[in-house]
Amino acid sequence: MDLTATTAQLAGTLADLVRLLPSRMYDPVLAGVLITADRDGVLVRGTDRERGVRLRCAATVHADGQVLVPAKPLAETLRALDAPQVRLVVEGSRLAVRVPGARFALPLLEADLHPGVAEPPARVGSLDGPEFAALLSVVASVAARDDALPMLTGVRLRGEPGGPLSMIATDRYRLAIATLPWSGESSVDAMVPAALLVEAAKQASSTEHVALHVDQDRAGLVWGDAAIVTSLLASTLPDERKILPTTVDATVTVDADALAGAVRRVGLFSEGPQVVQLALGDGEVRVHGGGQQVGEAEEHVKAEITGGRPTPAYQLRYLSDALKAFAGQQVTLSIQPGRRGTMFTSDGRLQYLVVPIRTVG
Amino acid sequence: MDLTATTAQLAGTLADLVRLLPSRMYDPVLAGVLITADRDGVLVRGTDRERGVRLRCAATVHADGQVLVPAKPLAETLRALDAPQVRLVVEGSRLAVRVPGARFALPLLEADLHPGVAEPPARVGSLDGPEFAALLSVVASVAARDDALPMLTGVRLRGEPGGPLSMIATDRYRLAIATLPWSGESSVDAMVPAALLVEAAKQASSTEHVALHVDQDRAGLVWGDAAIVTSLLASTLPDERKILPTTVDATVTVDADALAGAVRRVGLFSEGPQVVQLALGDGEVRVHGGGQQVGEAEEHVKAEITGGRPTPAYQLRYLSDALKAFAGQQVTLSIQPGRRGTMFTSDGRLQYLVVPIRTVG
Repeated sequence: MDLTATTAQLAGTLADLVRLLPSRMYDPVLAGVLITADRDGVLVRGTDRERGVRLRCAATVHADGQVLVPAKPLAETLRALDAPQVRLVVEGSRLAVRVPGARFALPLLEADLHPGVAEPPARVGSLDGPEFAALLSVVASVAARDDALPMLTGVRLRGEPGGPLSMIATDRYRLAIATLPWSGESSVDAMVPAALLVEAAKQASSTEHVALHVDQDRAGLVWGDAAIVTSLLASTLPDERKILPTTVDATVTVDADALAGAVRRVGLFSEGPQVVQLALGDGEVRVHGGGQQVGEAEEHVKAEITGGRPTPAYQLRYLSDALKAFAGQQVTLSIQPGRRGTMFTSDGRLQYLVVPIRTVG
Repeated sequence: MDLTATTAQLAGTLADLVRLLPSRMYDPVLAGVLITADRDGVLVRGTDRERGVRLRCAATVHADGQVLVPAKPLAETLRALDAPQVRLVVEGSRLAVRVPGARFALPLLEADLHPGVAEPPARVGSLDGPEFAALLSVVASVAARDDALPMLTGVRLRGEPGGPLSMIATDRYRLAIATLPWSGESSVDAMVPAALLVEAAKQASSTEHVALHVDQDRAGLVWGDAAIVTSLLASTLPDERKILPTTVDATVTVDADALAGAVRRVGLFSEGPQVVQLALGDGEVRVHGGGQQVGEAEEHVKAEITGGRPTPAYQLRYLSDALKAFAGQQVTLSIQPGRRGTMFTSDGRLQYLVVPIRTVG
């Protein structure tokens, strides 16, 4: 194998690959990247058996071939280079990374031992890349990171031909539902690991169309020459439609950034559990925080209020996250009685439910 | 007490104060900042008994007074504000931080319990602010961070009237000596805690003249209306003049940035201890790294070589740090035999010694 590529492009491709695979890989074979050079350029592939990644980069190929080399060291070496062009060439038991005045030689791993990289299952539809990435990153941000509840670490993708695609995630204290148009070709209902899906969507977000591929066991995203495949999570979420608001005490419509700023400042005055309280007034919402020891904080934010005058309290982080999801927009909070969730909505694309904490007094 | 100030200025002053005091303070009284408002504006002071800090900020004072409030919460509150002007006013047992639409109320601490903030000892001379800060940050970077060897956590300041001021620090593996002009009024030889001195010099670096104040027990820096005072370290460094190079095998003169780039890239190929080796050739220095498992790396950098052809090896980090100290300059490495230190020099302001590691083979 012998090829020359633009350093920045090849470095970017390897960096993308590394980001789509687990950061720790104990099996040295799986820690390797399969590099295939042919007349179409260079194909890089990696897997941890649960997920598979395939990316492509333009290159001038002087001699075809395929090698397996440690993925992270190759990515780091390429990233550190200043030279505009880089040559990868097999020299004995090494893959040499050559630029003028320097040679970096990575050991070849046994490509025969590599299990191969799965190809995506059948296509079920396609999505707008930037919109998919933006909404998915909000929905996935409420998914649990704790592998103790694997079901909550996923995003549920559900859609029918002719209807929209919905993306749903929850960690029991928050629930986010995004609804976006797609060109559905088959119906889909799949639980996909949130973290991987977000990284893949981010990489795909510069592409106009992202294809979704799903079967019983696996899901994949395909954009341009790139593809990722992952095993589905085994269980699914309860039907979220049962917990959408039914009894609304009051609504607050407010500039999300203004309220987020007030919450951030008042939140500095939280004692113990990080809690802030909203109090609905005439044409304004008051944000309260504090305690005997740290002092008290109160800030007023202009708002349109309808209904009663409840005083719900929230975990600081949950309230901040919810408002951040509506940055730059007017957001409406639909407040339900007691500890029933408050729904945040704006243009209908996103429904974001936050469970309040028990209020004192 | 009642005053109005420009938010950014007052927030900056409090942030500077917090940075000059230890980040954890268990005594709530010492965790407080003494705020004094009078016709000159507002004075903020803090101490941990070992060090004392005094800073000043312009303010319109409506009512004189002095209060003690928690320093960090006040700094964080001020930093979070968007409003251009802020009012600080005592209201009962609280210091209220007021901006339009918001009130943040910090508890008043008992100012009577505060031990007061020491004033600087006698002045011994003055220095150019930017030059002092730049050279000090390099010298202090080699000081040990480990309190197990308190002597090595200091910078030794030594000077006489009529001569230059020298600043010396070492962690036993590296030694840095900076020599800079000063207007010395008395002789000085003092061991000052490195971390505090660097932060103070950084804050003073926008000021043309920084005054150095030293007596038997304490040292201080005074710039504009600001001052810090600190206890001296109890012990001093051995005379560094005994370990300056005497037998030079070879010298390498090279662009520091070019060599640093090569060292960074080759350093990615270190196995176990992070080591790179230099090999002196004709008109170039070769940078080597690697091992059987990670692969090998070699990069050539143009250089002027005199003397023999030694092949010293260095800890990656120590070599990188030394080259960074000469960024943008031509640096000369004077290599001594065996494990005797290599001296890095450029324009004479800075001497930087790095002890090589034992070379293999």
